[in-house]
Amino acid sequence: MAIDQIAVERLIGQFERIRSLSEKLASKLQNEDTIIQAMPDVSPPKWHLAHTTWFFERFILKEKNSSYIPFNPKYDYLFNSYYETIGSYHPRHSRGVLSRPSMDEVYAYRDYVNTEILSLLRDYGDEVPKEVEDLIEIGLQHEQQHQELLLTDVKYNFSCNPLLPSYTESSSSPDHTNSRQKSQVTEIKIEGGLVEIGFDGPGFSFDNERPRHKVWLNAYQISSHPVTNGEYLSFIEAGGYEQPEHWLSDGWATVKKEKWKHPLYWRKSEDGWYTFTLTGEKKLNLDEPVCHVSFYEADAFARWSGKRLPTEAEWEYAMSSIPIEGNFVEEESYHPMTSETQNKSPIKKAFGDVWEWTSSPYTSYPESKPLEGALGEYNAKFMCNQIVLRGGSCATSKWHIRPTYRNFFQADKRWQFSGIRLAGDLT
Amino acid sequence: MAIDQIAVERLIGQFERIRSLSEKLASKLQNEDTIIQAMPDVSPPKWHLAHTTWFFERFILKEKNSSYIPFNPKYDYLFNSYYETIGSYHPRHSRGVLSRPSMDEVYAYRDYVNTEILSLLRDYGDEVPKEVEDLIEIGLQHEQQHQELLLTDVKYNFSCNPLLPSYTESSSSPDHTNSRQKSQVTEIKIEGGLVEIGFDGPGFSFDNERPRHKVWLNAYQISSHPVTNGEYLSFIEAGGYEQPEHWLSDGWATVKKEKWKHPLYWRKSEDGWYTFTLTGEKKLNLDEPVCHVSFYEADAFARWSGKRLPTEAEWEYAMSSIPIEGNFVEEESYHPMTSETQNKSPIKKAFGDVWEWTSSPYTSYPESKPLEGALGEYNAKFMCNQIVLRGGSCATSKWHIRPTYRNFFQADKRWQFSGIRLAGDLT
Amino acid sequence: MAIDQIAVERLIGQFERIRSLSEKLASKLQNEDTIIQAMPDVSPPKWHLAHTTWFFERFILKEKNSSYIPFNPKYDYLFNSYYETIGSYHPRHSRGVLSRPSMDEVYAYRDYVNTEILSLLRDYGDEVPKEVEDLIEIGLQHEQQHQELLLTDVKYNFSCNPLLPSYTESSSSPDHTNSRQKSQVTEIKIEGGLVEIGFDGPGFSFDNERPRHKVWLNAYQISSHPVTNGEYLSFIEAGGYEQPEHWLSDGWATVKKEKWKHPLYWRKSEDGWYTFTLTGEKKLNLDEPVCHVSFYEADAFARWSGKRLPTEAEWEYAMSSIPIEGNFVEEESYHPMTSETQNKSPIKKAFGDVWEWTSSPYTSYPESKPLEGALGEYNAKFMCNQIVLRGGSCATSKWHIRPTYRNFFQADKRWQFSGIRLAGDLT
Amino acid sequence: MAIDQIAVERLIGQFERIRSLSEKLASKLQNEDTIIQAMPDVSPPKWHLAHTTWFFERFILKEKNSSYIPFNPKYDYLFNSYYETIGSYHPRHSRGVLSRPSMDEVYAYRDYVNTEILSLLRDYGDEVPKEVEDLIEIGLQHEQQHQELLLTDVKYNFSCNPLLPSYTESSSSPDHTNSRQKSQVTEIKIEGGLVEIGFDGPGFSFDNERPRHKVWLNAYQISSHPVTNGEYLSFIEAGGYEQPEHWLSDGWATVKKEKWKHPLYWRKSEDGWYTFTLTGEKKLNLDEPVCHVSFYEADAFARWSGKRLPTEAEWEYAMSSIPIEGNFVEEESYHPMTSETQNKSPIKKAFGDVWEWTSSPYTSYPESKPLEGALGEYNAKFMCNQIVLRGGSCATSKWHIRPTYRNFFQADKRWQFSGIRLAGDLT
Repeated sequence: MAIDQIAVERLIGQFERIRSLSEKLASKLQNEDTIIQAMPDVSPPKWHLAHTTWFFERFILKEKNSSYIPFNPKYDYLFNSYYETIGSYHPRHSRGVLSRPSMDEVYAYRDYVNTEILSLLRDYGDEVPKEVEDLIEIGLQHEQQHQELLLTDVKYNFSCNPLLPSYTESSSSPDHTNSRQKSQVTEIKIEGGLVEIGFDGPGFSFDNERPRHKVWLNAYQISSHPVTNGEYLSFIEAGGYEQPEHWLSDGWATVKKEKWKHPLYWRKSEDGWYTFTLTGEKKLNLDEPVCHVSFYEADAFARWSGKRLPTEAEWEYAMSSIPIEGNFVEEESYHPMTSETQNKSPIKKAFGDVWEWTSSPYTSYPESKPLEGALGEYNAKFMCNQIVLRGGSCATSKWHIRPTYRNFFQADKRWQFSGIRLAGDLT
Repeated sequence: MAIDQIAVERLIGQFERIRSLSEKLASKLQNEDTIIQAMPDVSPPKWHLAHTTWFFERFILKEKNSSYIPFNPKYDYLFNSYYETIGSYHPRHSRGVLSRPSMDEVYAYRDYVNTEILSLLRDYGDEVPKEVEDLIEIGLQHEQQHQELLLTDVKYNFSCNPLLPSYTESSSSPDHTNSRQKSQVTEIKIEGGLVEIGFDGPGFSFDNERPRHKVWLNAYQISSHPVTNGEYLSFIEAGGYEQPEHWLSDGWATVKKEKWKHPLYWRKSEDGWYTFTLTGEKKLNLDEPVCHVSFYEADAFARWSGKRLPTEAEWEYAMSSIPIEGNFVEEESYHPMTSETQNKSPIKKAFGDVWEWTSSPYTSYPESKPLEGALGEYNAKFMCNQIVLRGGSCATSKWHIRPTYRNFFQADKRWQFSGIRLAGDLT
Repeated sequence: MAIDQIAVERLIGQFERIRSLSEKLASKLQNEDTIIQAMPDVSPPKWHLAHTTWFFERFILKEKNSSYIPFNPKYDYLFNSYYETIGSYHPRHSRGVLSRPSMDEVYAYRDYVNTEILSLLRDYGDEVPKEVEDLIEIGLQHEQQHQELLLTDVKYNFSCNPLLPSYTESSSSPDHTNSRQKSQVTEIKIEGGLVEIGFDGPGFSFDNERPRHKVWLNAYQISSHPVTNGEYLSFIEAGGYEQPEHWLSDGWATVKKEKWKHPLYWRKSEDGWYTFTLTGEKKLNLDEPVCHVSFYEADAFARWSGKRLPTEAEWEYAMSSIPIEGNFVEEESYHPMTSETQNKSPIKKAFGDVWEWTSSPYTSYPESKPLEGALGEYNAKFMCNQIVLRGGSCATSKWHIRPTYRNFFQADKRWQFSGIRLAGDLT
Repeated sequence: MAIDQIAVERLIGQFERIRSLSEKLASKLQNEDTIIQAMPDVSPPKWHLAHTTWFFERFILKEKNSSYIPFNPKYDYLFNSYYETIGSYHPRHSRGVLSRPSMDEVYAYRDYVNTEILSLLRDYGDEVPKEVEDLIEIGLQHEQQHQELLLTDVKYNFSCNPLLPSYTESSSSPDHTNSRQKSQVTEIKIEGGLVEIGFDGPGFSFDNERPRHKVWLNAYQISSHPVTNGEYLSFIEAGGYEQPEHWLSDGWATVKKEKWKHPLYWRKSEDGWYTFTLTGEKKLNLDEPVCHVSFYEADAFARWSGKRLPTEAEWEYAMSSIPIEGNFVEEESYHPMTSETQNKSPIKKAFGDVWEWTSSPYTSYPESKPLEGALGEYNAKFMCNQIVLRGGSCATSKWHIRPTYRNFFQADKRWQFSGIRLAGDLT
């Protein structure tokens, strides 16, 4: 099965556009910035640039072009992230040690692989096998995921430097002059019943979004807006971080061990609260969605509020017909905003701004089939000890997100742009 | 609301029977055995005896008898397990440091609290408030849970002693002379559809089993028997512990870090496999249910088998009408057996022998309400990073288990009598 | 070479006296107390009783009696402490797991080995080889060291129990009714020059005390008394634990990490300072020698005082002709006292009460020869990262200490009865 | 007291020469290389460049020039290494996080401070106070120490990169074409007696080298040459790393924990042994001095050889009249060599090539006085848990070393150019 010429050209266009966005995002950094790894969860920006390139080299060029000459045979070891069935790899926590290859070499690597991929596609002519198209598509979706990680990782790395560097200049967007939420928070009632979730349309989806399947939902309510900094501050000021009754056991242990008193990047000063952003430290805007909270904090806040987090089925069902609009990486704000896009749905800011923690542990869908081969490791092997987040963030590409999209992190992680939307029972 | 005289007498009878079983189980130990804690997950037997007593003192005597004089005011600190809202408590990992109170004092404490409880009940006459009955019932259920833990903890403690002490003499039960499984393994097909799970009958249930609620199940199959040692050994011999493709990412990391090569308590000798039991080290019986495997191992075994673990809804629905019969603590075998009880169901050994790992992370049921007050911490706060197990084990009381009963442990835990039952899709 | 009959009888008498003292010290404990190990540095009392017995079994009975039948062959693994050249051994930090052998079995083991040793000696008649006498002597000296450890370990174990158990009743010794130091502190000037230190007399000494050798000492001064609780409290109240300028770098890191604010076992209450002792918690007596300080604290206190700790050569040379008198384990006070024995020396309390930290790292003496064979591991292999203490404590046997005796612990250890004597330059 | 004009000009010349050597050493690196820190013991090269500059700014410009405007006030926090009495500082283990200031900014910082120092000196004219001269001298000695660290740290960082980058090209020095040791190893007998060690001459010395003082030395022997790779390989091949009897207790624990089988940077390949150097991985030259061994390995090798390490007094007394010649950083070999300089002494390679572990723990000399003020922290506070090394290495400046010079590291450290010279008793 092959794809037609228009589809090939569209694929090439996507390839060039997405690959060059990674370089654009990295171009705001100095060479020294590209190699640091301030904690094991983050990767150096240079590693992201190389690893996404290796993904194309390893899963397409090496598999589909028998005469392909690898750029550097050692890169298989250096830039494999976690594919155990492919071979051993450099330990994740030591990526910050790899000052070489230099940025110049990594850019040369990117150019080499880009050229080879485009050449491979052109060699196929108008007979690009569907399988190759799928692999390129997954490679591009993968690269978009790493673009988001590059931003969140740079933010974390910079936050550990007492000089508090800025990734980029603050934009004087209208949003910041008009920092009010456009509409009031309301609770949207949803009837539920025997519904379906999961992906079954045309276009790309990850294996973990499939198959579409039946789920029973009791009637429920969901908030029209994500929780704001101001609302979350009320929880802090009410003593939420000192009261074990709101917290899961593991969450309370984490609060005590890590001495958490507020979301990541917040700082209390004599003249009020500040938060560190990719444009430097700013006064906390109480109307923006709260961000950089762990699942534990989201869950405790919900319990304190007399509500709960939505399940991922509740979230997806509520958002299933809302247009994909919002504050994405293409906005170049790199920060959750107060403004909201206008559409007919009473639910606002469903996509972009902040990933929304659900109450659902990340597990496989009924009768789900992981991809064949090493790419079967892409999603399935992480289905334990992680919680699903939905909706994308200000660091996600608009072209990457879907209502069925399942992101996932451990319950104590805070360095992603992760926020909260509340739900509740109707009985 | 009060309960009638017959109910009171039955309650008193249960109280005496269950409380004295704890002492009977402890009576096989020497005083030195009662204080050891070979890892943070286990508690010293003496601590179990005192903590279960404290539970009655703290939640009943102190709440319902205003003139109650505590046995020792410091026991609130020593024997509170994890109730944060009640006050601070002795760190879990340091329970093995508490050589005092001595066993003599702990038995005196038990007698004192038993007398006070019975006196309280008798003072009510035939007007025992329903709330008090409920508290005693939960205290007794709680004690039964700790009876099981006492056995699993002693087993772990003894396994760390190179002398490999026996908890009790081996019984020469017919089971061991006739060590063949009575019936062949088959796969039972179940149609599913929109079914209900959860408890709604009369009698006791924990808050985490309620409310009964609708769940959609695709058609599925479930094995007639739990996986045996022989079947699991095939996985080992096929290289299962060296092949990352079967394992969850966290599971593979655990295998490598802990150097797991087989279930807990197994040992390979020149003349074959042995396993440590509460009656000492024994030759491994290939027909017994495999036991002391983690969720990671259960999941990897299932994947290697081309099957999967059942969800907890699938498990419960399949077992919902099977009689509660099997190899329980009352059998005094303290070990999973080969024999099976006879009933009409094609599903065998549903209860007793080994807890069966499901694929379901432990979360709250829709519209579930935890208990009021400190007892709300009993179950709800652990609903994160744990996996549900079903069916009870050879260390569980027959009077404690139900089809709706939800046990839960972290995915890497192996010191419980935890085994495997396989399921599969029908498409 | 053999020893005469009188020497044999004296040896037998010593053997019986010292061996039975261990049992007397243990007799104040309950069985549960004998198995706990509250930190890796301490050993359970039962382990001390068995290990000292194993020492006689392994180094004498197995070597000198070819027909000796071991009490239990597995004890070689369980009760070898650290003799690598003999074979593998149970990990030190897991001694608290060994609830078996029970106390009854350990006492049977002691009886068995005692009988065999006495039988061996009697079989030799009046021809006991010198080598056997030496081995018995080292075994007895070894047992005396473990008697002291048994007391310090019980003290530490009990201090971790919120019930604060007492090892024994407080004695109403005259010392406590007359809690004043008998004489004023003075600084004793010592001329120094080319002097000799180390053991060369008749009688027992450890290999690490030999050979006697020349050392050059500049003129120096040494305090007449050890530092008192009152003097040390002045350091605390002056902010000593908050001022890095007094501390060694490793010491300051330890202060911050461990949050040290005072010696081990001290507690500040509303009505003043308390200290935990083997007779329970007591009001701090300001005139007693300060105790349970680390080398870091001793060194920081000295620096803050404008003085320094003595080198071990300075200490030994100053004490070399002072009689061995003082507050030893035979006094049964189990605590440093204020009273001092009377003799002609201006230096007081040289022996007993508290071990005195010197400024000397523990290294071998020039031309020193460790013992042959496995016993060569007894002292020599610890000559790194340890500091020498001198003089014995209230838990040391009077018959065990000498001016040349070298005790040694790491610089951060505090659970021994360790105190401070100051010295200074004279230029 | 002031110094004369010639002395001022010499000081300025030294300042310019030493400061520019740091930049020359760093110039071989790419910007990405300057920020990595592969373990807490090493510092990023950029940090060395900034910290040595801060030393001049903080201890001279801020103290002696009241109108001095700091380059960046936050650098006091970022580039203070460990001076507690000056203020808080960035944690050592997190230096690798500081991608900013960039290399460009660090060079600007160096230029700014250099200009200010020279301007200060010129402002004094021919009346430069002795105290200022002393501070500049100590700043330059300090910078020389960090030049050596920069090289050893780059070597360690690069060794952790699977690409095994080279710091510089291999020089084709005559040494490598003629890789034979020039003379045979002999044992030099030294009579000892009451001798003196320590610095008392004119010129610079650190406070830890003073005062000169008397020491008694028994007669001893010392090897004419440091131990070679070939000799050390014999120890490995004889099973030295598997035999506990040669090792200190802490050393043996380290061998087992770290799985040491050979010196740092060695690798066994099918065609023999290789070692990683600053010019890349090379075949092991058996005639070169063994390097990158810990004190534990040096001590175990000596014991296995039937010898011992020299005390620092033995070392210094033996080397006291040997000219300062050898393989230093100025040779630009960056590696220990086989060739030896010619002089009348029977002792060869006393200086340069490798630091030689002594058996002496690092302690203060009798009546020693640390520097006043914060610089008193320079050496004195490390006098615990460290071992003295003598003689300088191939990474030390020839102008930095003296017979009395005391270097010191913990017993398990291996990333310095540390080797072995044997000694022995004569009785």
